[in-house]
Amino acid sequence: MSSSSEDLSLTNIRITAFKWVPPIAQGLVKDLRVRWALEEAGLPYTEKLLELGEHHSAAHRAVQPFGQVPVYEEDGLTLFESGSIVTHIARKSPVLMPADEAGRARTLTWIFAALNSVEPHVQNLTTIDLFCANEEWAKLRRAGEEAMAKARLEAIASALEGRDYLDHRFTAGDLVMTTVLRLLRHTSLVHDIPVLAAYQARCEARPAFTRALAAQLAHFERNEPKAA
Amino acid sequence: MSSSSEDLSLTNIRITAFKWVPPIAQGLVKDLRVRWALEEAGLPYTEKLLELGEHHSAAHRAVQPFGQVPVYEEDGLTLFESGSIVTHIARKSPVLMPADEAGRARTLTWIFAALNSVEPHVQNLTTIDLFCANEEWAKLRRAGEEAMAKARLEAIASALEGRDYLDHRFTAGDLVMTTVLRLLRHTSLVHDIPVLAAYQARCEARPAFTRALAAQLAHFERNEPKAA
Repeated sequence: MSSSSEDLSLTNIRITAFKWVPPIAQGLVKDLRVRWALEEAGLPYTEKLLELGEHHSAAHRAVQPFGQVPVYEEDGLTLFESGSIVTHIARKSPVLMPADEAGRARTLTWIFAALNSVEPHVQNLTTIDLFCANEEWAKLRRAGEEAMAKARLEAIASALEGRDYLDHRFTAGDLVMTTVLRLLRHTSLVHDIPVLAAYQARCEARPAFTRALAAQLAHFERNEPKAA
Repeated sequence: MSSSSEDLSLTNIRITAFKWVPPIAQGLVKDLRVRWALEEAGLPYTEKLLELGEHHSAAHRAVQPFGQVPVYEEDGLTLFESGSIVTHIARKSPVLMPADEAGRARTLTWIFAALNSVEPHVQNLTTIDLFCANEEWAKLRRAGEEAMAKARLEAIASALEGRDYLDHRFTAGDLVMTTVLRLLRHTSLVHDIPVLAAYQARCEARPAFTRALAAQLAHFERNEPKAA
């Protein structure tokens, strides 16, 4: 549902993402969360695409203090932090969040669980494996970080015992948790916990996820640097 | 404003916290965020206090999958994740969050910035300094983690340039960010960035913060283990 420049008039939502990133990051860049939420909500959007490096510019840092993507713009409101953007979109759509305040608070709890209690440990392991594998500290620390990440994955698996989703139905909490699990695709950690692997597959089977992933990857394919 | 057991009838909010923790964690345990938000909102609450160790029990994990504090209970709604609980409280009080949806989304953005973009790096440094200082990997990694934490602190300082708070007024985003900065009290990182040190002092000068901190510390003082 990503809009081409011709139908700009149909939408007032714009996201900032990358034109291209290396294969190691393709399908993981965090605009995926926002694209997926917009697809679930049925909200069209346009895109502002940055060259790699442009995200460090003063102009970009004025709207995203950490020099990252995504940024979300809508009618003069500018947001960053994928967790905040997904929550903002979820409040517009019953597909992503129950309508009652208690249900909304539970959904937000799972979004924070994914981003504050699971992702930091997953990210530490990913940093070691993808960026520091040959460094001495990383070799010494890897087992410890893996154990931390695994403990958090097992806690999520326990929470999923006997149910398909973290709450009684699919919510934005599952959307965000799934994108955190995806960060471990270079390991067998999720695969080794069947209830978690089935959960990730269940969430990724949603047509909105397929469309969101395709929209991110289409740019990377189109903008693949030519071999020298 | 923490209520004693006699006036249970005045409140329907209960938080779970610790009876005692070692000095290294006193004033940092994450129920502080929730106590502070409740004090700002003027909402009375009761407490369920856990012994150290009890947080690993199956009974506690049934309400907090990671075996942590705080837990928040209100009229049959049970929440965990301090970010989610603070947001839930903030939606009840104009002191913590503007009333319009755009202002609420901006507040939530700063809560996520504190918990997903700043705290993970701050926590990595704190883990090294407080729990792993003598390990070889920690010695090799410390400078790298300090540089990451510092970069995020500088980004927050830039965002604060020319203003007293992260948004145009004090919000729950400042409350959470302040509690993240507190985790660095064993270092000079915040002190070394004057705009950030002044910001932390400004937020901690709020009477609601003073009451919240005193409420947490009072239990630790009362339950200090006797020397053998």
